[in-house]
Amino acid sequence: MSEPTVPQFRVIDLIRKKRDGGVFSRAEIEYLVDGCTKGSIPDYQMAAWLMAVVLRGMTGEETAALTNAMLHSGEVLDLSFLPAKKVDKHSTGGVGDKTSLVLAPLVAAGGLYVPMISGRGLGHTGGTLDKLESIPGFRVDLDAREFERVLKACGCSMIGQTEKIAPADRKLYVLRDVTGTVESPYLICASIMSKKLAEGTDALVLDVKTGSGAFMKKEEDAVFLAELMVETGERMGKKMAALITDMNQPLGRMVGNALEVQECIEVLHGEGPADLRDLCFELAGWMLYLGGAAKTVAEGKQLCERIIASGQAFERFRQMVELQGGDISAIDDPSRLPSAEHRVEVLSPQSGYVTAIATEQVGTACVILGGGRERKEDSVDPAVGIVVHKKIGDKVSAGESLCTIHCHSLADAQAARAKALLEESYEIAEAPPTYKLPLIHRVIYKGES
Amino acid sequence: MSEPTVPQFRVIDLIRKKRDGGVFSRAEIEYLVDGCTKGSIPDYQMAAWLMAVVLRGMTGEETAALTNAMLHSGEVLDLSFLPAKKVDKHSTGGVGDKTSLVLAPLVAAGGLYVPMISGRGLGHTGGTLDKLESIPGFRVDLDAREFERVLKACGCSMIGQTEKIAPADRKLYVLRDVTGTVESPYLICASIMSKKLAEGTDALVLDVKTGSGAFMKKEEDAVFLAELMVETGERMGKKMAALITDMNQPLGRMVGNALEVQECIEVLHGEGPADLRDLCFELAGWMLYLGGAAKTVAEGKQLCERIIASGQAFERFRQMVELQGGDISAIDDPSRLPSAEHRVEVLSPQSGYVTAIATEQVGTACVILGGGRERKEDSVDPAVGIVVHKKIGDKVSAGESLCTIHCHSLADAQAARAKALLEESYEIAEAPPTYKLPLIHRVIYKGES
Repeated sequence: MSEPTVPQFRVIDLIRKKRDGGVFSRAEIEYLVDGCTKGSIPDYQMAAWLMAVVLRGMTGEETAALTNAMLHSGEVLDLSFLPAKKVDKHSTGGVGDKTSLVLAPLVAAGGLYVPMISGRGLGHTGGTLDKLESIPGFRVDLDAREFERVLKACGCSMIGQTEKIAPADRKLYVLRDVTGTVESPYLICASIMSKKLAEGTDALVLDVKTGSGAFMKKEEDAVFLAELMVETGERMGKKMAALITDMNQPLGRMVGNALEVQECIEVLHGEGPADLRDLCFELAGWMLYLGGAAKTVAEGKQLCERIIASGQAFERFRQMVELQGGDISAIDDPSRLPSAEHRVEVLSPQSGYVTAIATEQVGTACVILGGGRERKEDSVDPAVGIVVHKKIGDKVSAGESLCTIHCHSLADAQAARAKALLEESYEIAEAPPTYKLPLIHRVIYKGES
Repeated sequence: MSEPTVPQFRVIDLIRKKRDGGVFSRAEIEYLVDGCTKGSIPDYQMAAWLMAVVLRGMTGEETAALTNAMLHSGEVLDLSFLPAKKVDKHSTGGVGDKTSLVLAPLVAAGGLYVPMISGRGLGHTGGTLDKLESIPGFRVDLDAREFERVLKACGCSMIGQTEKIAPADRKLYVLRDVTGTVESPYLICASIMSKKLAEGTDALVLDVKTGSGAFMKKEEDAVFLAELMVETGERMGKKMAALITDMNQPLGRMVGNALEVQECIEVLHGEGPADLRDLCFELAGWMLYLGGAAKTVAEGKQLCERIIASGQAFERFRQMVELQGGDISAIDDPSRLPSAEHRVEVLSPQSGYVTAIATEQVGTACVILGGGRERKEDSVDPAVGIVVHKKIGDKVSAGESLCTIHCHSLADAQAARAKALLEESYEIAEAPPTYKLPLIHRVIYKGES
């Protein structure tokens, strides 16, 4: 059978159509994405179209067609040769949000494959690739064949987006970044899902953050995006679930690349802070359930406890680090991970209870220290960061440390700016907060669990 | 006094502001227009901003600030050395809309100056410059000094937009044309007014067309744009009035460049079709009134009658043609204007009354014949066109001619396509139309007249 001829459209008509609130056909969307990828449609036309999409929106069908066209603009991995289901997790990003490093080896030890393509930090949030690269020698730039080899050997592999994956997304993302068209749930959904589905996964669990440290501060925005992504994945034949999780304070206690790797190793050893462990078990439970390795989410979570206790999860992580060129001596002895010489304490000005944390500012403080990037081309310092001692609801005395800054010099302006920002971030009152923040705000899943 | 430092903004923040429905300060708009003119803001950012303006709109103050910034992106003529008021007219464009050629000499003979910078035809409408260029030798590319010299000598001059006038508008217009951002009253207003005010006029009469041959088919859209332009001009210290005029059928009987010049000469001689004469007198009456040469619009119209009857209007036209290099023998004897050899009659298929004319199609038929341009780079044939015999309300017998096509060859496909289009354009019914179209739908003016 010959391919049907691609219909030719006029880009100007397509821009006008979305401007006037029209609904695109699959062929129209494919024409635009194809022209964008090949560079035959100029940036100024794509920019006008993107702004029209931001302000007019898209239907579920259009969003799925856009995702599909972006996905097929590049290489789509075929992992059907692997003898079990492939499952992944995606987070919309937060502060101290480090679950991927725990989930990949944990779920792999549970009998599934976790082919994880991750991103770098941008804005106030950290990125999985930056964290992994704080392990000396760790390579995130594997090509598709190396990725498959690591996956087959230890059940999980964590890499960055290659040149060949979703080139339409890379082009569009650069353009969105400079044209004020990032903040659209339809475009965010298509961007995330086109990359995630290029991994060849069978199921995907979404960790959609909401709160003061998330991109979506309002829960209703997080729910809207989560529902759109779940619907889009399901239209494309994937098993999908989304957890709306709390980001009103940093997750765990560590913020900063090497510090976060260290905290993940603690969790893989059955230790670490309760909120981070609980969220890892929730997400892993869902991954194991959707991948068919557990009959219910609860069973999946119990399986996680056993895997951690047996040391298998840490062993998988160690294997992956070794296979991807990382120095396992730094995994076995985290004191060998990069670290900063100096400590600056952020002290509480009064006695009372922590009632709120401006979490985005905590992330920004880490960026100021050099632990994140303000622009894409910035390099990241693996050693610096913040250790959070007091979280919401904690009692604190005047002069007690709220958190500790890890930095290279006590004299530098960065440390002083970060300290001032952290001091401002804490809200301390005489009475304890009257509410308790749930870890999981909501689950979006269409079926039994 | 030193100029205050221009504040620096981030373009991305300005795009986001309009995307989210914000209102710009004058400084913010100036920053954008300046960056666009100098080329320091890339097209893709301007395109995103333009689409946000189309969908979010602008306040009257923002529109005036945009107009002002575009006006001052280039040369603004200072005609204060002329000993009387300067006044101009602008039309939003129609089919057979040729009043400028009558108005400039007529109002000049009334004692005012008419510095007229006009445009070319685009789409289904004709353009003043194309009409003037059908007079052999006529130059529309005078520079500012030549323009002033002609103005001083005969009271009127008609030229095209020079490179130096409103360069921001030229840049933005090219971008709007390819990004689906033409159709915004705010952007249309700023584009028109920035060019018109660069002429150094004291007063401006707007002829905003509505109906089947206008860009704005709906009267409410025409009124919205007219009010916006009147408000903008008044904010910039100009006397303003707008007439919403009918474009549900061609104005006068001639459609086509040399044919329209010929019809204007008829009007300047006190002849020509009544609708064209009446509209010219209305517009000229307003121009004379706003320019202070008449105490009321009615007095202005009476003055027009006398000027025409005395032959002074034609004389002024003849002087202007001569001063701008045109062949006055073709003005004295219009049979010497370019003409096409062949005639094709468009016959009525039935007896009855003309009840409607799809006027945009009549304009398109003229473009097909070569009398207009589909793209900016197309050249225009001065000789071809259409002579309209039957207008709305006219009685017609089966087989009688509705209009006559002037073309170069009876065999060419263009003539056949134009004929088919014209046949389709006429609606003929047994009974006469129950309504009578007004020539002037509405006047927008804030004061006594």
